[in-house]
Amino acid sequence: MDQAVITYLSKNREKHLAELKEFLAIPSISSLPEHKEDVQKAANWAANALQEIGLENINVYPTEKHPVVYGDWLKAAGKPTVLIYGHYDVQPVDPVHLWDSPPFEAEIRENKLFARGASDDKGQVFMHIKALQAIFETTGTLPINVKFLIEGEEEIGSPSLPRFISENKELLSSDIIVISDTSMMEPGKPTICYGLRGLCGLQIDVKGPKSDLHSGLYGGAVQNPIHALVEIVNTFHNDKGRITVEGFYDSVADLTDAEKAAYHALGITEQSFIKQLGVPEMFGEEGFTTLERTWVRPTLEVNGIYGGFQGEGIKTVLPSEAHAKITCRLVPDQDPDVIVNLLQKHIQAHTPPGVTVTTSLFDKGAPFVTPFDHPAIQAAGRAYEKVYKVPTSYTRGGGSIPIVAAFDQILEKPVVLMGFGLPDENFHAPNEHFHLENFDKGLETICYYWYELERSL
Amino acid sequence: MDQAVITYLSKNREKHLAELKEFLAIPSISSLPEHKEDVQKAANWAANALQEIGLENINVYPTEKHPVVYGDWLKAAGKPTVLIYGHYDVQPVDPVHLWDSPPFEAEIRENKLFARGASDDKGQVFMHIKALQAIFETTGTLPINVKFLIEGEEEIGSPSLPRFISENKELLSSDIIVISDTSMMEPGKPTICYGLRGLCGLQIDVKGPKSDLHSGLYGGAVQNPIHALVEIVNTFHNDKGRITVEGFYDSVADLTDAEKAAYHALGITEQSFIKQLGVPEMFGEEGFTTLERTWVRPTLEVNGIYGGFQGEGIKTVLPSEAHAKITCRLVPDQDPDVIVNLLQKHIQAHTPPGVTVTTSLFDKGAPFVTPFDHPAIQAAGRAYEKVYKVPTSYTRGGGSIPIVAAFDQILEKPVVLMGFGLPDENFHAPNEHFHLENFDKGLETICYYWYELERSL
Repeated sequence: MDQAVITYLSKNREKHLAELKEFLAIPSISSLPEHKEDVQKAANWAANALQEIGLENINVYPTEKHPVVYGDWLKAAGKPTVLIYGHYDVQPVDPVHLWDSPPFEAEIRENKLFARGASDDKGQVFMHIKALQAIFETTGTLPINVKFLIEGEEEIGSPSLPRFISENKELLSSDIIVISDTSMMEPGKPTICYGLRGLCGLQIDVKGPKSDLHSGLYGGAVQNPIHALVEIVNTFHNDKGRITVEGFYDSVADLTDAEKAAYHALGITEQSFIKQLGVPEMFGEEGFTTLERTWVRPTLEVNGIYGGFQGEGIKTVLPSEAHAKITCRLVPDQDPDVIVNLLQKHIQAHTPPGVTVTTSLFDKGAPFVTPFDHPAIQAAGRAYEKVYKVPTSYTRGGGSIPIVAAFDQILEKPVVLMGFGLPDENFHAPNEHFHLENFDKGLETICYYWYELERSL
Repeated sequence: MDQAVITYLSKNREKHLAELKEFLAIPSISSLPEHKEDVQKAANWAANALQEIGLENINVYPTEKHPVVYGDWLKAAGKPTVLIYGHYDVQPVDPVHLWDSPPFEAEIRENKLFARGASDDKGQVFMHIKALQAIFETTGTLPINVKFLIEGEEEIGSPSLPRFISENKELLSSDIIVISDTSMMEPGKPTICYGLRGLCGLQIDVKGPKSDLHSGLYGGAVQNPIHALVEIVNTFHNDKGRITVEGFYDSVADLTDAEKAAYHALGITEQSFIKQLGVPEMFGEEGFTTLERTWVRPTLEVNGIYGGFQGEGIKTVLPSEAHAKITCRLVPDQDPDVIVNLLQKHIQAHTPPGVTVTTSLFDKGAPFVTPFDHPAIQAAGRAYEKVYKVPTSYTRGGGSIPIVAAFDQILEKPVVLMGFGLPDENFHAPNEHFHLENFDKGLETICYYWYELERSL
């Protein structure tokens, strides 16, 4: 890559920050109806910014709530095409009195930019736009083809996005998808999270006698719904922490040696988890480390259980009902629908006599992984290393990000999560900020990435 | 027995009812401080009534709250001595607007006496006094020695009674104890409940991580307190409904063939329970009927379980804590302290790794049984049969009556529960009443009982 790109970025830093402050000044809070026009204004701002740097086919697509901004540049014939995702909407700012500076008047203190959206996600969207501009301005072209998709509903759960993607597969077709809406592990430690777990959940409702009974008068002769529920729930795991639902692990992909080595290289000890969480010891599926258990192995957790008396002291009741809420975290190549089906069969097969058991379903989402050794992942790792001068960490995440699964499932292309936030930047809270070290280094990293990608894909 | 006793009772019926109405007019609500003087007034009324019929050594013993009334007649040399227990205090009357007649202005409608305390327990205490008076007046003596103990704290849990009994063992010494504060099974069906279960209870508190965790980020690597609790609770029973706590059944007395036959004779079908309770089937310890399971077998019931999220929908939490409340119903010769100890050992032995488990204790009470074939029980059965002209039913109860256990444990004499109430008489509720058929027949039954007892003990 031409060093002129880097020089351009440093020469224009003040101008860029001034522009970003403009973007951050728009209170585009997607969850509050009174800010609907502000959300539209932020969409227009993003569309203009794309146009100004030379992108084409700019469009602000209306949805049922807030618009999707699109723009592309597709003149790098024979080169890879990247779809860049971000969002221009932000979280509410309450309680406002806890902010040290007004949330929509961005202010720099100690090389951090304080404003709602500084890190999540206007700052990161803006970096992608300015990185392309830097390359355009210094070289007159781009090493790759790009498409931008910037939505305005991320903070309310992206209700319109899956449909928009499904209906615009052709428009959005690309070789890879880059999402900059996540965090690095810690300052100076570039991180690529290349997999997230999926999710499925259900509630188990156990019904026994038609009303609560006196446990002295009927206990021992009527199936207690709590006992029945406990009996069912206890069949989900063996005492080695392994899930015993038949077929549950059938489509779980094996962990590769390269991945094992990558996790080991992170240097995170079991002892550090024990201290952080305040538990006497870690516990989970036998044969796996904590990182493996939370990143690459599926889980089944009871998130809530309740039935009968919960007050102080004692009430000798045999309750009419008992309930449990469970969620599974899924890994490739588990299918949420298949797993839910296995769970329901298992529950049915393990229902003791004397009660009726029903289940109801919650939201579900597929797991996602872009293979660790995929060229797009490795190219991203090299780009980070060029700028940060330390090895990139390769991680997976135990949680789920619905939009990532949506891209992965609908467009069926590798997703690269290239995040420049930091865990302590107060996303969704007062005093959200963005470390400008990562603003500067991130801009460079993105530029390097497009050149690395050109050579890799 | 001289028929003159029966004639006396029928000749004085109106007079007796008028006197009972006086007793019922005193609002001796033991739980309400503003009725403290009324409670004292009722104690004095009972003491006077004992004196009027010829009892001696009348005393109104103060306690920390409400007094205990005592009186005796001990001139039947060489004859058995009976301690008669009852209480003169009553429950509150709220909500008063649901009463069809004022709770402290007794009114007879359809041969039922409506008033607070009519059945529980002033009516039954009064019957004992009048039965003795009838015998005194017609024969000039009594076939037995009697001692009366009438307390004023039954409706607030008899806090002073165990101490009073313990400190007055000599005063209260007797051959049997007769308690008239329970119910018959149904109209026209005399019933002797000759056993009640004891009770012990504890709460299990499971503590895992120091705060709630995100189940996506940590699930599968940290012992979930709900899973641990479920694992413990599931070890309490096998799938045949039998309790698997080691030693739990060691001191359980066997059911005799005569008792089995007596329960069978009650003619209560499993189907009637299924219908009444609205369950798909009855379930309990294999090899026993529902009556046996609730009367003569011990139980372990979870009365409440809770941990994690209980709201609508889903929350992907791995909770910091989970809790269960359990109670055991105990039968002779189980000792509550021994059982609590077995439970705690069992819980400790079955605690899975990764959590800390503590237990806290609730109230406990010993089980009670007067052997089915005890002469005092059989004599009571014959007395009922002379009046009601149908066979007496012999039952046990699944619940616990603390004062019964207190008498049984402290005085170590057979307790006979001779109740004349009916299950639908609204004890503790608006429109409490007493069926006067059982007032009349009960008076006769008591008189017959003293003569039967004279011959039997």
